[in-house]
Amino acid sequence: MKKLRRSGRLVDMTNFLLQNPHKLISLTHFSERYQSAKSSISEDLGIVKEIFEEQGIGSLLTIPGASGGVKYMPMVTVEQAKEYTTELNAQLSKADRLLPGGYLYMMDVLGQPRIMNNIGRLFAAVYGNVKIDAVMTVATKGIPLAYAVGSHLDVPVSIVRRDHRVTEGSMVSINYVSGSSKRIQTMSLARRSLSPGSNVLIIDDFMVAGGTVRGMMDLLAEFQANVVGIGVLVESEGEEERLVDNYISISKISSVDIREKEIKVEPGNYLSKLQERMKEEVK
Amino acid sequence: MKKLRRSGRLVDMTNFLLQNPHKLISLTHFSERYQSAKSSISEDLGIVKEIFEEQGIGSLLTIPGASGGVKYMPMVTVEQAKEYTTELNAQLSKADRLLPGGYLYMMDVLGQPRIMNNIGRLFAAVYGNVKIDAVMTVATKGIPLAYAVGSHLDVPVSIVRRDHRVTEGSMVSINYVSGSSKRIQTMSLARRSLSPGSNVLIIDDFMVAGGTVRGMMDLLAEFQANVVGIGVLVESEGEEERLVDNYISISKISSVDIREKEIKVEPGNYLSKLQERMKEEVK
Repeated sequence: MKKLRRSGRLVDMTNFLLQNPHKLISLTHFSERYQSAKSSISEDLGIVKEIFEEQGIGSLLTIPGASGGVKYMPMVTVEQAKEYTTELNAQLSKADRLLPGGYLYMMDVLGQPRIMNNIGRLFAAVYGNVKIDAVMTVATKGIPLAYAVGSHLDVPVSIVRRDHRVTEGSMVSINYVSGSSKRIQTMSLARRSLSPGSNVLIIDDFMVAGGTVRGMMDLLAEFQANVVGIGVLVESEGEEERLVDNYISISKISSVDIREKEIKVEPGNYLSKLQERMKEEVK
Repeated sequence: MKKLRRSGRLVDMTNFLLQNPHKLISLTHFSERYQSAKSSISEDLGIVKEIFEEQGIGSLLTIPGASGGVKYMPMVTVEQAKEYTTELNAQLSKADRLLPGGYLYMMDVLGQPRIMNNIGRLFAAVYGNVKIDAVMTVATKGIPLAYAVGSHLDVPVSIVRRDHRVTEGSMVSINYVSGSSKRIQTMSLARRSLSPGSNVLIIDDFMVAGGTVRGMMDLLAEFQANVVGIGVLVESEGEEERLVDNYISISKISSVDIREKEIKVEPGNYLSKLQERMKEEVK
């Protein structure tokens, strides 16, 4: 790579860090990449850090010493988070997503990579200080958000299947009871898709009683894996008792009036968790 | 936003452009964001453009006039593309992904958001000058790559289902013949998930004879939609005649020897398409 001036280094460095979240990059790496002294690189990183933190792009952690370097961790400000979720809630409360039986059509929201990326970034910010080895979700609708989160945390994604496909090899299956329909269902995860003892963040698109999430937790127990967090895009209040605690939700559907075609949406519980996380960051 | 110096503007501007691919950003937007004269913003953008193009991050299209501005379009250099695919092919040729019946376990590759992002960026680069309204794929394994492509092109993703779910509302279904198994199968797409007349890029993870892609094309015809491109991660040579032309593949499995546990992988046909695309860009 040809020698760059500071202005050029700042552009390239910003791109490089954004493409490599949660990864320790040594000063030597940048120093060699730009054929510049480490002192200049340090100054560059100071500028990047200031802007990243002021604009709520992320925090830039500096690890001193010979094996040190910098690590970019995606963040969102409270304002950004509110902006993301206000947009989401406005979309969710549109009456035309009501389907027969009181179901909600969600694919228009889940089908927008931009929304998934924003919410994925929000979850990655909230869980940024937790050691996570993998994100897990259940096919099909949880997948877009799970990948967005995995991408911002730079960890792999494991997909639990409700069907049994020959092309996944040896699978571990469990039965679970769907909280809302009370039916016994099966979910399976390919044995090789998750290492035993992994720390796993569960992500799903929709939660009513939490039967599916509970099922994923039971499945993870079969892998001797640890559930380190649960994030759902939308929770909905049902008549059933909640089977899951300690989850973070972005939106909450508090009531659906089929007759009046009205969907009431309020913010989930994410805000207090984000604020807690930001306080830690300041320490 | 507080007034920033050039160095700060470059960092923030780089982030802003990277988060908003294929979107026209007016000079006024930046000028107001940074409380700086348009002449300074123009100079900033010149620096960003130079680095983006030199480093193969993307091209920065300048549209002159009152309604003009800049548009960032993700790109990859031939070197980067080769790097991505060499890594992918090395992983694909590992013998331990061979499953009974000659199937290949793919979720370890598809489960890595980083790989999906890289390949998604490559497809977005190749199809960057085509008018695309939506990316379409079939559940489950095509989803990660489809979202990566959709994200870099800033277009929504439509997911075709092989099962029929009540929560999707009115669906359009077709029968198709899977080329390899010769079985009649059904695929469905929610009517509201795609506007009639859309220009659609089909993305899938694996193609043998192309029966599934062919099915998606037939389904799109029901929506009066146009297929403007077909991208597959891996193609495999089967004994059947190909049902699809004009696709772009990243990797090609040329032979699988179950007895010797050997998988031969070679590059797909993407390189010539990328080079064609780059020549256009230079014009």
